[in-house]
Amino acid sequence: MKKNIVLLPGDGIGEEVTASAQRVLDAVAHQFNHTFTYQTEAIGGAAIDEFGTPLPEATEKACHASDAVLLGAVGGPKWDENPSHLRPEKGLLGIRKSLGLFANLRPVQGFAELLHASPLKHEVVNDSDLLIVRELTGGLYFGTPSERRDDGASVVDTLAYERSEIERIVRKGFEAASVRRKHLTSVDKANVLESSKVWREVVNEIAPEYPDVTVEHMLVDAAAMKLITAPTDFDVIVTENMFGDILSDEASVLTGSLGMLPSASLREDGFGLYEPVHGSAPDIAGQGLANPFATILSAAMMLRYSFAMQKEAETIEKAVDSVLKQGYHTGDLNVKNGQKVGTKEITDYVIEMI
Amino acid sequence: MKKNIVLLPGDGIGEEVTASAQRVLDAVAHQFNHTFTYQTEAIGGAAIDEFGTPLPEATEKACHASDAVLLGAVGGPKWDENPSHLRPEKGLLGIRKSLGLFANLRPVQGFAELLHASPLKHEVVNDSDLLIVRELTGGLYFGTPSERRDDGASVVDTLAYERSEIERIVRKGFEAASVRRKHLTSVDKANVLESSKVWREVVNEIAPEYPDVTVEHMLVDAAAMKLITAPTDFDVIVTENMFGDILSDEASVLTGSLGMLPSASLREDGFGLYEPVHGSAPDIAGQGLANPFATILSAAMMLRYSFAMQKEAETIEKAVDSVLKQGYHTGDLNVKNGQKVGTKEITDYVIEMI
Ligand SMILES: CC(C)[C@H](C(=O)O)[C@@H](O)C(=O)O
Ligand SMILES: CC(C)[C@H](C(=O)O)[C@@H](O)C(=O)O
Repeated sequence: MKKNIVLLPGDGIGEEVTASAQRVLDAVAHQFNHTFTYQTEAIGGAAIDEFGTPLPEATEKACHASDAVLLGAVGGPKWDENPSHLRPEKGLLGIRKSLGLFANLRPVQGFAELLHASPLKHEVVNDSDLLIVRELTGGLYFGTPSERRDDGASVVDTLAYERSEIERIVRKGFEAASVRRKHLTSVDKANVLESSKVWREVVNEIAPEYPDVTVEHMLVDAAAMKLITAPTDFDVIVTENMFGDILSDEASVLTGSLGMLPSASLREDGFGLYEPVHGSAPDIAGQGLANPFATILSAAMMLRYSFAMQKEAETIEKAVDSVLKQGYHTGDLNVKNGQKVGTKEITDYVIEMI
Repeated sequence: MKKNIVLLPGDGIGEEVTASAQRVLDAVAHQFNHTFTYQTEAIGGAAIDEFGTPLPEATEKACHASDAVLLGAVGGPKWDENPSHLRPEKGLLGIRKSLGLFANLRPVQGFAELLHASPLKHEVVNDSDLLIVRELTGGLYFGTPSERRDDGASVVDTLAYERSEIERIVRKGFEAASVRRKHLTSVDKANVLESSKVWREVVNEIAPEYPDVTVEHMLVDAAAMKLITAPTDFDVIVTENMFGDILSDEASVLTGSLGMLPSASLREDGFGLYEPVHGSAPDIAGQGLANPFATILSAAMMLRYSFAMQKEAETIEKAVDSVLKQGYHTGDLNVKNGQKVGTKEITDYVIEMI
C-alpha cells in the first residue's frame, strides 16, 4: 500500500522522536512492501517562530490531504508568556478541530520491566490494562461564549455538546470495549451537570446495541479515586473532553511508564492524528536523549487504526517490547539492571527487531 | 461560650456519625466550660422521604440562624432514579449556595497507623500533608444556562465566575498557605479556559500581598498526575469548583484513610458547614459499624474555624490520634494488630481521652 504521512515534529524533543518513528515506519514499509511518503510541516512554537502562527494554513492543508498525521509534541517555556492565540497548544487544539478528530484513544498498559517504577504498590497496579476514550472536539474546550464580561468583572466558559457528538463518541467507547474485555465505564457528573445527564441517557440508549458489553456509570470524582485504588477494575473508560483530559493524565502515571504511552485522535472514517502522551521536554531537547518509544508506539497505532495494518502494528509493538526486555532504555525510564542508551541507538535496536 | 449547632444527619450512616460527633462535642463542652445546644434538621434523601424536598425551608432557616452546621452524609441507591430536583445531592448543593459557603477546605494527612493501607508506595506517600481549598459556590455547579436546547438536540452547562468570587477564594488559599508551609499551588486550565486565565491573573495580582508564600501555577491535568507521583510536593492547592471536586477526591485516597478525612465549607465571616469527606455508606447503615472519626474531626474543624477554639479542636484531634495509636479502629480501616470495634465503642474511647 502507498500512504502519505504528514509529520508534525513541533517543539522540544518532537523532532527527535518523530524522526525515530519515521525510521521505524520505513523499516516496516520495507519489510511489508508498503510505500510511506512523508511531508514535514510546522506546528506549535516552531510554527509561531517561523510563520507567526501556531497552525499555519499550509500545515492544515497538508494534513487534510494526507492519509495520517504523526505529531511529536508542542509547547515550551519560550512561548509561555505569549498571548493566547500565539500559544503552541492552540496549534494542537486547532488541528484537532480542523480535522474533526473527535475520538482520543489513550491506552494505559504496564510494561513488566517498568512497573517497579510505578508510584503504586505492585499488587494494586499489576495487570492493569485500560483504555481511555476521550471526546476531543467538544465540551469546555470549544464551547462559546468563552469570554470576559462586564469590563472584566466576570468570565464565562461554555460546556456545550450536540447530542450527536455524544452519540458518536459513546459508540467509539462501546466498539472499543467490545473488542477488549467488554466492560465500559462511562464517566460523567450527572448529579450536577445537565450535559452529563444527557451523556448518561445516550449511553443507556446505545447500550442495547452492544449486548455483550457491560456498562457502568461512574461519577468523575469517584473515577478519580478508583483509578488509584483499583485501576485493574477498568477496561474502557469513555468520557467528555475535560474529564478525559484530567483522568487520562492521572491514568498515565499509574504504571510508571509515561514515556511509553501513545495516543490516537480519530475521525469517523479512520483518519487520525497520532502523538505520544508525554510533552516536549525542552530540558533535554536536541541532545539525543529523548525516549522515542511513545511516538514509535503511536506510529503503530496509526498502522492499526488508519491503515488497517494489524500485523505491521504488532510487529512494531513486539519490537519495542523485546528491546525493553533486553534491558535497553532511555534516561527517563527506570529499568533494573538495564542499559541506558540514546534516542538513535534505541531506535536502531527497535529496527533490528523488525 | 454558648454555641448553637445545627445537626444535619442526612442519609445512611449520617445519623450514627453525627450522633458520635455530638457526644464528643459535649465532652469538650464539659471539659472547657462551653455550652453547645443542638437542633437536628432534615436534609437529602431523608428530607425527600419526610418532606418531599431535599432541602426543606425549615432546615435552611435553622442553618441560617445557627452558629455552625454539622452534616453527616447524603445520598443512597434509594433515590438514585429520582428526577434531579428530588435527588439528595440537591440538598447539599442547595445549602452550600444558600449559606454562601464558598470555601471548601479539605486537609489530607496520613495517619502512621493507616499509611500501609495506601495504594501508593510508602516512600511516595509518607509525610504527605496537603490542604485543598476548593471554590464551592460557583463555576459549572451553578452557572446558567444549564439546559437542553433545540428539542434535546444539544445541551449546555456554564462555567461562570465573578472576578470577586475568584479573588475571595484565592485569598483563602494564600491565607491557608501562610499559616502552613507557605507554598500555594494554584490549579487551572489556563491553556484552554478563559476563566482559568482570569484565575491565573487574580492569583498573580494577589500574590504580592503574601510575600512569604511561594506561588506555583499548575494545569489541572498535570496536578492530577503529580498528586500521585509526588504528593509530598504539595502544601496548599487552590482551585475552582469542578477541578476541586475531582482533585480532592483523588487526593482523599492517597493516604489509605478516606474514612478519616474531615472537611469545612466556610463563609467569609467564619460561619461554616462541616462534613466528613466519605459518603453515606448505605450498606452498613444502622448497624453500629460506621467510622465516626471523619465526622468527629469535622467537628474539630468547626471548633477551630467557626468558634476559634484552637485548644478544644486540638484536644479532639489528639484524642482521635491516640485512640488510633492504641489500635482501636472500625471495620473500614486497616490497622495492623489493631482491635476492631463499633461506632459507639470507638466514640467512648475518644471521649475517655478528652
Ligand atoms: C495541550 C493541551 C491543550 C492538551 C489538552 O488539554 O487537550 C493536552 O493536555 C492533551 O491532553 O493533549
Ligand atoms: C454530592 C456532590 C454534588 C458533591 C460535589 O460534587 O460537590 C460531592 O461530590 C462533594 O464533593 O461534596
